[in-house]
Amino acid sequence: MGSQDFDPAQKGEPDLLNHSAEQLNGSLKGKDILSVRQFDTPTLDRIFYWSIEMAEIARKGYKADFLSRRILANVFYEPSTRTSSSFTAAMERLGGSVIPINEVTYSSVAKGEDLEDTMRTLERYADVIVLRHPEMGSATIAAEAVSIPLINAGDGVGEHPTQALLDYVTVRKEQGRVNGLTVTMLGDMRHGRTVHSLARLLSLYDVKLNYVSPEILRMPPEIVEELDAKGVRQTEFDSLAQVLPETDVLYVTRVQKERFDDPAVYDSVKGLYVVTPETLQAGKESLTIMHPLPRVGEIAKSVDLYTRNAAYFRQMENGLYVRMTLLAGVLGKLPTT
Amino acid sequence: MGSQDFDPAQKGEPDLLNHSAEQLNGSLKGKDILSVRQFDTPTLDRIFYWSIEMAEIARKGYKADFLSRRILANVFYEPSTRTSSSFTAAMERLGGSVIPINEVTYSSVAKGEDLEDTMRTLERYADVIVLRHPEMGSATIAAEAVSIPLINAGDGVGEHPTQALLDYVTVRKEQGRVNGLTVTMLGDMRHGRTVHSLARLLSLYDVKLNYVSPEILRMPPEIVEELDAKGVRQTEFDSLAQVLPETDVLYVTRVQKERFDDPAVYDSVKGLYVVTPETLQAGKESLTIMHPLPRVGEIAKSVDLYTRNAAYFRQMENGLYVRMTLLAGVLGKLPTT
Amino acid sequence: MGSQDFDPAQKGEPDLLNHSAEQLNGSLKGKDILSVRQFDTPTLDRIFYWSIEMAEIARKGYKADFLSRRILANVFYEPSTRTSSSFTAAMERLGGSVIPINEVTYSSVAKGEDLEDTMRTLERYADVIVLRHPEMGSATIAAEAVSIPLINAGDGVGEHPTQALLDYVTVRKEQGRVNGLTVTMLGDMRHGRTVHSLARLLSLYDVKLNYVSPEILRMPPEIVEELDAKGVRQTEFDSLAQVLPETDVLYVTRVQKERFDDPAVYDSVKGLYVVTPETLQAGKESLTIMHPLPRVGEIAKSVDLYTRNAAYFRQMENGLYVRMTLLAGVLGKLPTT
Repeated sequence: MGSQDFDPAQKGEPDLLNHSAEQLNGSLKGKDILSVRQFDTPTLDRIFYWSIEMAEIARKGYKADFLSRRILANVFYEPSTRTSSSFTAAMERLGGSVIPINEVTYSSVAKGEDLEDTMRTLERYADVIVLRHPEMGSATIAAEAVSIPLINAGDGVGEHPTQALLDYVTVRKEQGRVNGLTVTMLGDMRHGRTVHSLARLLSLYDVKLNYVSPEILRMPPEIVEELDAKGVRQTEFDSLAQVLPETDVLYVTRVQKERFDDPAVYDSVKGLYVVTPETLQAGKESLTIMHPLPRVGEIAKSVDLYTRNAAYFRQMENGLYVRMTLLAGVLGKLPTT
Repeated sequence: MGSQDFDPAQKGEPDLLNHSAEQLNGSLKGKDILSVRQFDTPTLDRIFYWSIEMAEIARKGYKADFLSRRILANVFYEPSTRTSSSFTAAMERLGGSVIPINEVTYSSVAKGEDLEDTMRTLERYADVIVLRHPEMGSATIAAEAVSIPLINAGDGVGEHPTQALLDYVTVRKEQGRVNGLTVTMLGDMRHGRTVHSLARLLSLYDVKLNYVSPEILRMPPEIVEELDAKGVRQTEFDSLAQVLPETDVLYVTRVQKERFDDPAVYDSVKGLYVVTPETLQAGKESLTIMHPLPRVGEIAKSVDLYTRNAAYFRQMENGLYVRMTLLAGVLGKLPTT
Repeated sequence: MGSQDFDPAQKGEPDLLNHSAEQLNGSLKGKDILSVRQFDTPTLDRIFYWSIEMAEIARKGYKADFLSRRILANVFYEPSTRTSSSFTAAMERLGGSVIPINEVTYSSVAKGEDLEDTMRTLERYADVIVLRHPEMGSATIAAEAVSIPLINAGDGVGEHPTQALLDYVTVRKEQGRVNGLTVTMLGDMRHGRTVHSLARLLSLYDVKLNYVSPEILRMPPEIVEELDAKGVRQTEFDSLAQVLPETDVLYVTRVQKERFDDPAVYDSVKGLYVVTPETLQAGKESLTIMHPLPRVGEIAKSVDLYTRNAAYFRQMENGLYVRMTLLAGVLGKLPTT
């Protein structure tokens, strides 16, 4: 079945879920989640089905104890309340427990211990590790040090694969498909690992990508070339107005003043990257607006009232379901009936 | 049944508990707990019965899993180990889980996110939110932003309703009744939201209130007037000796040196607001001494030995039972048999 | 049965475990764990058996819910991610819950509350307290203030009994016995509470102890005398080479540069207290290398590859099992079949 053919009516279909559980347990059990590049479309299909199922499980709170007595070491070397809370909730919703490690003064580190030793200690206490670390590549180093599964929750300017997966699930849930969509990314294309990862993941599908940003915040050439080689249609724009009418999904990111050498340049462009109800007037009725959050003015609060379009809090919620799916998957515990 | 007629022997009476559970689930389910003003005496009666029942449940640790797989987002923008721990324990005693959010550097906030967006994110992960925030009114703003229940755990100089409820439960448990009591509040009447909230709650009953404080730390006129309008007998005093003999409940709060412009004034009065075994000699044998804790010298440690009178640690413990009751209530999960 | 006669084949033997559970529940229930001095060899035998059983329980994650609905207040006045995580995991592996109290700004303390009041509050919320505190003697003060069990997780230069117990379990697991062993302690004998506690614990057995350290970091005379009085053979050395060939267990600790008045002295000796694969060449094939971790260069990473000898991560893991045993024991909940 092509991923574009997903029929929401099938979500509760036991055979499909059973099949997906077996396949996902098979492909994820004992594995690390380090990069979006490790996923193919059949696996993405299954993650999507299970994310929908997990929404039911979380809502009903019924006998969802298949991670009972399993322990997550939730290790955040830099604070990220949102991602940290999401993984905590995901584990707890399935009956599991969490060792929260998010002190500002991370004691072992303060004592000079290296990352590998810390990870090798934690693997003795826990069944799975989630790691947020400020340095690119740290997740790979950590994963190689341990034999239990490790999930990268962001390693500096590197990867943040669970964010890309929840973005993918949101696009598909909101639009009912991925193939054939025009996805416009708005704001800072240069520094955001979020848009980099999502663009890579979407390159597995037949999508058209628009990058709208100031000149100095363009998508890095290596990513454009990588996607070009895969035949993805990509176009760069200076202003949203040029592409809004054809856009199915508008993915908004923050343009930070600090990125500009000249504050006057920032002031002259900032208005181009802010979404308001007026912006919506020119868009499709079915337009989906996303944002990795937190937002700081890029999307006016009044846009929240357009509940069909404003998908960013549902996007956040999908993060919970994707993480429930991944945690159960790497532990090989997705239930088959 | 009037609240003054409570008979402890009835506490295990299944019909009464059953009835109370139905009523409390009915009146609390899906509601926010923002202010003491939202409670009437029948609801207070039921909270009292259930607090006594929760003591049994916590002690026995028996099949008390009616909050199983339910998640509390325990959000503290300012540290309060005592209140935070109490809510954590309350949730865990009933089989629920907790997302603890109490980092010093609250990351989303550091990134500039506003309270409403943070709350709207957390409601996607959790079933109920507890919020401590330094600004008055923040709990109301937060509660309006979300559709899951929110419990105010203190919003600056505003409200701290669960503290007032545990104070009420303690008074009633220790004295066997509320109506007919003389309650003397000692210390800082001006700044303490604790005494403000308790005075308001007690105004639902037939009590006599004495306020003993230095001149500059008197009860705010608006509270005195509010209670006057309800017919509550209130009197202000400078020293405890004047009212100790008639006092049933002595509620002690801290007089902070920093509240005084002239340290000499502080030094001249501070001795009047400290409770020692000598103080107790002049009081009733049945005197109940309470304090919201932590204490820093207002009650001498030697008073702790007067276990009948020194109720402040039992008061703390009642906080656990009241919070168990409220969490189960707002989730509509108080068990009916 | 003498502890030296332990046969690992017996570990799953139901009668033995049953007997040990009854005895351990009997000797630990309601007790505090404050010092290594409170243990005798029959109790150590039982802790050892149960630590092996707990490894099975943690691995299988089967119906290990005998601490279900029990709550640990895990109180760390100074950060120690490793010890804190270990106790958290221990509680969660057995179905229990944790109140984590490890804020940098410990609010009640910031408000001036004393340790006893804080402990007396927490005993109202929890069933057992674990306390790490920077001041020697604080654990005893805290334990006397409460009626629930308290486990000392390190009180300054005082005791750290659970570390000594996990070290003992590791020695016995790795070597199959304790009696008859030669244990060489390397590094800083003067400041390390770890080696002090372990030496005291091993004095219950027929062991030979070697202390290898720079002159200024010798074992304190009071400990040497204490063990002398018990007939323990103790010898001091300047370099490891002198005793390596006869050593069964090499316990490595860190030599901190800051301990030396003259950096040149440090530079001249530091190489003598670092373990490398070359060091291993001169040791027994069955040599067990231990370290309380974190290490900062005292043991080269290449030593990790000698998996038979390099026991420090297994030692860490044993900490989990020992703490599971102790928590279940002080709560009187070790299961009898």
